[in-house]
Amino acid sequence: VVPHFADDLISRTRRLGHPLCAGLDPHLPLIPPLFHRGSMAAADPRTAAAVADLFAAALPRLAPHVAVVKPQSAFFERLGWRGIQVLEEVVAQAHDLGLAVILDAKRGDIGSTADAYAGYLDGSAPLQADALTVNAYIGRDTLAPFIDAAAAQGRGLFVLAKTSNPGAADFQDRSIDGAPLYAHIADALRASCTALTGASGWSSLGVVAGATHAAEHALLRERLPNALFLVPGYGAQGAPAADAVRGFVRGPHGLEGGVVSSSRALLFPSAGHTDDAGVWERALDAAVARASEELREAVA
Amino acid sequence: VVPHFADDLISRTRRLGHPLCAGLDPHLPLIPPLFHRGSMAAADPRTAAAVADLFAAALPRLAPHVAVVKPQSAFFERLGWRGIQVLEEVVAQAHDLGLAVILDAKRGDIGSTADAYAGYLDGSAPLQADALTVNAYIGRDTLAPFIDAAAAQGRGLFVLAKTSNPGAADFQDRSIDGAPLYAHIADALRASCTALTGASGWSSLGVVAGATHAAEHALLRERLPNALFLVPGYGAQGAPAADAVRGFVRGPHGLEGGVVSSSRALLFPSAGHTDDAGVWERALDAAVARASEELREAVA
Repeated sequence: VVPHFADDLISRTRRLGHPLCAGLDPHLPLIPPLFHRGSMAAADPRTAAAVADLFAAALPRLAPHVAVVKPQSAFFERLGWRGIQVLEEVVAQAHDLGLAVILDAKRGDIGSTADAYAGYLDGSAPLQADALTVNAYIGRDTLAPFIDAAAAQGRGLFVLAKTSNPGAADFQDRSIDGAPLYAHIADALRASCTALTGASGWSSLGVVAGATHAAEHALLRERLPNALFLVPGYGAQGAPAADAVRGFVRGPHGLEGGVVSSSRALLFPSAGHTDDAGVWERALDAAVARASEELREAVA
Repeated sequence: VVPHFADDLISRTRRLGHPLCAGLDPHLPLIPPLFHRGSMAAADPRTAAAVADLFAAALPRLAPHVAVVKPQSAFFERLGWRGIQVLEEVVAQAHDLGLAVILDAKRGDIGSTADAYAGYLDGSAPLQADALTVNAYIGRDTLAPFIDAAAAQGRGLFVLAKTSNPGAADFQDRSIDGAPLYAHIADALRASCTALTGASGWSSLGVVAGATHAAEHALLRERLPNALFLVPGYGAQGAPAADAVRGFVRGPHGLEGGVVSSSRALLFPSAGHTDDAGVWERALDAAVARASEELREAVA
């Protein structure tokens, strides 16, 4: 039986009662002294081992309490090939713990290069993600290999639509024929989004929806009623839980239709910046309990 | 003395008399039997060694005849961490041969993630490129860490402006206030482009300009008079040499103002698909001689 990314993810958020996604962003300056090895510089070969230790300790604690994990490729890439080796280990460990993995890599390119990037989803590459974030600026045709892989292998993709950084106004929000550019991207996804919809009613073609205003969530949801929203920036970046789920849809299971990602606040609570293993464990447990409880209330 | 990416690159194209960039895209099905090891599947650990052998043999033959090399990250990523290890070796080998390296990765993200990607340019990561291709869809603020690293370390960046794929019409070409989206991206780069201009008159902030029509080249050049154009798609993808340099500017050294990239036609000439080392060497030498000669005539 081919899995279905959205069905499996929604089934898990229903079971948990919340849509918390753990962003795995190994910011070197935030790694607790407990895990330090060597200089902790990006180019120091020992740093990758420190990151591996961090996740080997953190993932089993997070796993029972999160819907999905989202490693951010940039932080692993910065460590060179050893960082990618750790990323592969993290993905394998997450899978062993029963977690799906969204690889946050914002990839996008043309032709055979897009085919190569689709290796993350099509079973061909050593690193197999359950879903990938992608950038559609170059055009709809660049998404085809990802969509094909998602369909054939039951994987998912999240297309960058709207982010909440100050620069979002530069291009994403610019008006074309009366609608912002990101709405045109959403429109271009509609047919594929429908085609990838599963038994849950949700599609394995989702969007990155880091919207700031309620109207932006509404605009995306209206255009893509079945798309899962990957909502970044919950926690450290400041959005309250209720704002993060504004694009979700009320049904028999409460509000659903996406996942809400917390990275720094979850993985690096300030109380966990210590070399005491017990203190770190309690800080991590408290951070995930707090985030999951806030989101549980927000979607109730 | 801090180097200057654009000055160094232009000095080299003047010396060579042409702007040929060798795209290093290790398409597995195109790798000559001469270099095969094992199954040649992406997930086979032996495949990375085959790719390493290919470049160890090809780079010394290409080096004297090309202005710069441009490895495409996707093809190395597809091989997992072993592929990144080979990418790091290829970059080191190119540097040893006196070649600058444009890492074609089309990265782009917000805040601390953009900082992490800027590790490719800022001296912090094991893999140091001389220039990086980046995607600005998310907003101008996402470029700041790359621009800062370019200024501090004398590196370069090429911002995705215009591509020539069929889907370019979906978003890039959409009209906003009377100009296509890609023109607005060019406008947003203008101040930084000026700030990164060197003694040669050319800026280390360039654009990816895979334009199809002369008017598109002219529009980009008018908006960014000092930007180097990275023109992909010469050779296998079909654009003739004269078309590829339409955005270049005539001066005392002929037409200049960018580099023209050939990937498949240069690295994988059909006559080189063999297990005979001598035949492969002659095919590679002929391919690079043909491409450099065509471009030399086009810029004369």
